[in-house]
Amino acid sequence: MDFKFELLAQDSASAARLGRFHTPHGPFDTPVFAPVGTQATVKAMRPSDLCDLGTELVLSNTYHLYLRPGDELIRDLGGLHTFMAWDGPILTDSGGFQVFSLSQSRKIDQDGVTFQSHLDGSAHRFTPEKSIAIQENLGADIIMMFDECPPPDDFDYVRESLARTHTWAERCLAAKGRDDQALFGIVQGGIFPDLRAESARFLTDLDLPGYAIGGLAVGETKTQMADTLEVVNPLLPANKPRYLMGVGAPEDLVRGVLSGIDMFDCVLPTRLARHGSAMIVGGRLNMRNARYEADSAPLVETCGCYTCRHFSRAYLRHLVKSNEILGHMLLSTHNIHFLLTLMSDIRKALRKGELSQFAAEFLSHYPPLGN
Amino acid sequence: MDFKFELLAQDSASAARLGRFHTPHGPFDTPVFAPVGTQATVKAMRPSDLCDLGTELVLSNTYHLYLRPGDELIRDLGGLHTFMAWDGPILTDSGGFQVFSLSQSRKIDQDGVTFQSHLDGSAHRFTPEKSIAIQENLGADIIMMFDECPPPDDFDYVRESLARTHTWAERCLAAKGRDDQALFGIVQGGIFPDLRAESARFLTDLDLPGYAIGGLAVGETKTQMADTLEVVNPLLPANKPRYLMGVGAPEDLVRGVLSGIDMFDCVLPTRLARHGSAMIVGGRLNMRNARYEADSAPLVETCGCYTCRHFSRAYLRHLVKSNEILGHMLLSTHNIHFLLTLMSDIRKALRKGELSQFAAEFLSHYPPLGN
Repeated sequence: MDFKFELLAQDSASAARLGRFHTPHGPFDTPVFAPVGTQATVKAMRPSDLCDLGTELVLSNTYHLYLRPGDELIRDLGGLHTFMAWDGPILTDSGGFQVFSLSQSRKIDQDGVTFQSHLDGSAHRFTPEKSIAIQENLGADIIMMFDECPPPDDFDYVRESLARTHTWAERCLAAKGRDDQALFGIVQGGIFPDLRAESARFLTDLDLPGYAIGGLAVGETKTQMADTLEVVNPLLPANKPRYLMGVGAPEDLVRGVLSGIDMFDCVLPTRLARHGSAMIVGGRLNMRNARYEADSAPLVETCGCYTCRHFSRAYLRHLVKSNEILGHMLLSTHNIHFLLTLMSDIRKALRKGELSQFAAEFLSHYPPLGN
Repeated sequence: MDFKFELLAQDSASAARLGRFHTPHGPFDTPVFAPVGTQATVKAMRPSDLCDLGTELVLSNTYHLYLRPGDELIRDLGGLHTFMAWDGPILTDSGGFQVFSLSQSRKIDQDGVTFQSHLDGSAHRFTPEKSIAIQENLGADIIMMFDECPPPDDFDYVRESLARTHTWAERCLAAKGRDDQALFGIVQGGIFPDLRAESARFLTDLDLPGYAIGGLAVGETKTQMADTLEVVNPLLPANKPRYLMGVGAPEDLVRGVLSGIDMFDCVLPTRLARHGSAMIVGGRLNMRNARYEADSAPLVETCGCYTCRHFSRAYLRHLVKSNEILGHMLLSTHNIHFLLTLMSDIRKALRKGELSQFAAEFLSHYPPLGN
């Protein structure tokens, strides 16, 4: 199976590019934002709702699905696409990040990680081979190498961790059996340019169908994130997609695209929705705020999403205050629509050669880097 | 405004009838089942989802909306139809039932009821005039008289309560100002045929556009419910719709139709969904049950709802076990579809003169009355 990445346009004023990645479940256009379906469901969204919004790629989490309902069960039920009724492209992460961020306790050795489930405290072990086996059972179109996501600013630890992650990358590649899944590498190295560069070169030598940049959006500053992208992106092969993991703040998406990133995923739109917040250009509306109590306007006058076409801020506030499920549904719809529209606008601007103007206008609503 | 009730067919073998009730927001066909949107939202359902399922009438609760967000606010925002973006017919109850079932404490006098909010314990007072004023602010197409819903089997109390409820009925009628809302009476009288008959006659004399039968589905047996309908329905005018409040068990809907009921409402389909249960002919599937863990079949093979067309029982079980919002959404869709399809099948059978056969077959899946 060939996972072709077509480069359709290259921005003249930045490293941004327009592309199309082909998978066994159809192509997706890049730059792309993938909503996250942690437990095989993008929270409060039906697959048909995602489809209506123009979702092209969905991410799901290996760690969560391994623990519940189990990857072998999903395999026996026909794989993740059938299980969650999403017939488009799916990407699964490796489980590494969640083992380090969610499990109750964990112990890393050179061979893998032993950890306790956040659900019931039961003991489990992930190795590179196990992560690939789980991801092959799940059957996503794009799967990720098992990596460690270390604290980004401890040089000695990051260097040691990186050597381990590279060994694990080779083991993942060796363990991979299915040829209908694209295995992406993950560049680590914390905030250290030399380590990031070393990681990019090491993984490039493995000639993978795509490359992720991991370990960002975990506490470093936006300037550190931007600096890391400036180091890594030029070292990655131009003819392979570049994926910035776990990043979904609108300004980060635009800056990421300018630096040469093609793919993003983040729980932000659905998580904000569950907290009662709506994404708008330049910020958020917290619908718990009393100022919206009698506000008959939609969230955003010019927004074409189902929520903004039908409901007032006052109604959304009522739903959020009353803890009604429809509040989650409508805010999730708006927030995912907001990010997908941003990506679509970015692609349109790239097609027209107008990305610089678009990005400058959009970023004028956000604080500049370094502040 | 004329609330015309057209009688389109009368079953030859039972008191069942086919009809159409016209409201300022369009007609609905009877027998009808109305999903309940307690807080101005049918839980976990968008208005477009309800529309897709063929929902013709939605009920909302005066007590809840008065407390939060407030009926005056809803009036100022254009009324309940605009607020919840439901452009079809809406019915609001009087608040009476919730005052007696939900409030922390309550004190009834001849003039009205003083009660404490279940939300914050604050003190409030409903009178017949207040209930009508709230319902006029909400602006539903059908509004209900403020009544007391007493314990059904205490004769002395029910008799005293009934006299009060009848006085309140006259006061509601006198208080009513808007002519674009139909005010329905509510027949009370507990399980006592004489009191029920007295109530039916009293309210019939008021020449109202519709009549509800209240105080059922509150603990009496199914046989007592059936006996009450046998007493009341023949005493109500044939050319007005009859509404059995708060009843939604499938066998009760069929028996209610056979006895001459035209309208029903109930939280059952959405409440069962939130508890992880799917309605099927003859019973329920509890999706928490381990037997569905690896079950690749849909809830019901022959069901055409979105849930059954796309998802396995195993996936629904996973969602319920994982407490995912999509589980509520998909089970609510199925359960509302189940009841609306039942009502549609009943209307089809009435049109063809085949209701007896349909009802006999359907009821063969349920325990007979008296058992």
